[in-house]
Amino acid sequence: MSYSVLAGGKRFRPILTYTTASLYDIDLIKVDACACAIELIHIYSLIHDDLPAMDNDDMRHNQPSSHKTFGEAQAILAGDGIQALAFEVLSRDESIPPDIRIELLKLLAISAYEMADGQSIDLSVVSKKVDIEFLNNMHKKKTGSLISCAVKFGALIDNINLKDSDILDSYSNNIGLAYQIQDDVLDISSTEKVLGKRQNSDLVRDKPTYPAILGLDESITVYQDLYKKAIDEISSLSVNEKPLRKLTEKLMERDF
Amino acid sequence: MSYSVLAGGKRFRPILTYTTASLYDIDLIKVDACACAIELIHIYSLIHDDLPAMDNDDMRHNQPSSHKTFGEAQAILAGDGIQALAFEVLSRDESIPPDIRIELLKLLAISAYEMADGQSIDLSVVSKKVDIEFLNNMHKKKTGSLISCAVKFGALIDNINLKDSDILDSYSNNIGLAYQIQDDVLDISSTEKVLGKRQNSDLVRDKPTYPAILGLDESITVYQDLYKKAIDEISSLSVNEKPLRKLTEKLMERDF
Repeated sequence: MSYSVLAGGKRFRPILTYTTASLYDIDLIKVDACACAIELIHIYSLIHDDLPAMDNDDMRHNQPSSHKTFGEAQAILAGDGIQALAFEVLSRDESIPPDIRIELLKLLAISAYEMADGQSIDLSVVSKKVDIEFLNNMHKKKTGSLISCAVKFGALIDNINLKDSDILDSYSNNIGLAYQIQDDVLDISSTEKVLGKRQNSDLVRDKPTYPAILGLDESITVYQDLYKKAIDEISSLSVNEKPLRKLTEKLMERDF
Repeated sequence: MSYSVLAGGKRFRPILTYTTASLYDIDLIKVDACACAIELIHIYSLIHDDLPAMDNDDMRHNQPSSHKTFGEAQAILAGDGIQALAFEVLSRDESIPPDIRIELLKLLAISAYEMADGQSIDLSVVSKKVDIEFLNNMHKKKTGSLISCAVKFGALIDNINLKDSDILDSYSNNIGLAYQIQDDVLDISSTEKVLGKRQNSDLVRDKPTYPAILGLDESITVYQDLYKKAIDEISSLSVNEKPLRKLTEKLMERDF
């Protein structure tokens, strides 16, 4: 479990949680459990996604994937244990009032469920022709749901106003989708060393991707427009959105 | 997910939760989410345990196991989704006050974690010689933890007194261990049709079992004594323990 959790990675989801919380002057120590829980769910999903029966990836975060190092059985169990740990870490944080903690646990459970659902749909359409709407819905579950959860976690600890909540919802949906399209593009255009995992892995597995449907250039335009839309949206927040804008701009420029 | 969850099985853990709750005159509708959450965690663990990389069992509850019917990838994801669903079901039940719901979610997370930990230890000692103490500790995590959780769930919804809480703790530890030793015995002495899964599966996989260390007759004596001790303990509860005693006696007599 520590082998995979401590291997690094972008830590994009917890950073999103901390950054959102920072907009509302929330004491960031109060956000630790939320940020950990989100990252733990993400890491468990990577361990399982990498399994031979799933995406069969032998590299992750510039090291052999969990099942390559510990065998399939222990990798499955590491993922199972990490999922449980995510809920434990969050339920144990007594700095968060019980009614809000319940809300966070519920959101985390729903996101973790949708993520597994999305991955299940993803595997069921290998080698099949699907349209953009199908791909959008699938990725909304597979990637978008946990990213939305990461943003909500940053805001939910404080009682932010309803208008901000709606804006952040839409923002997180847009960057969630942008992030996935960008991942598809990077899988083709980046190098293995920078990615920390095998390149062209989608192509090898004959998975439906945005570049395969829209072409590479159009895919880049689509994800950049989504990021720009997201940046535009948060300018209407009741607080200074600068840290979140800068993070979003950085995401748009990422090459891994 | 429904294929495995609705296939039946003994439903022993949720029955334990309902029975414990019934001792304290708790409205059983309030127990539904708890009972479901416990059973969902149990079922997810069976789906993953049955995988080729784990125990490689092709039959479960008298039907082909999940991976035999849906393939390994979908079976892994069904288990992942069911674990998340367990936390969702419990976190959503608004009939349980938030502070108690948090306590239940924490217990469920800890039990689910220990269960994965116990299974990991179990797989790491295949073909190795271990002693009874090691086996007891392993099964306390692998099987005992969720059984203890099932009993606590029945009691925690109401605020029972501390003495009853201690008694139920000890009771659940004893029946948890008894249940596992009995499973080992039944794996040798029962028939496949009655068990609903392959017989002698432990022996085939060269797993350390109680009969292998203690012999069959001694194993039977040990688990019967544990059940009797558990029945004796609950006679000191502040309430009429009859329903729980009857359930425990039924368990002791089970042949599957």
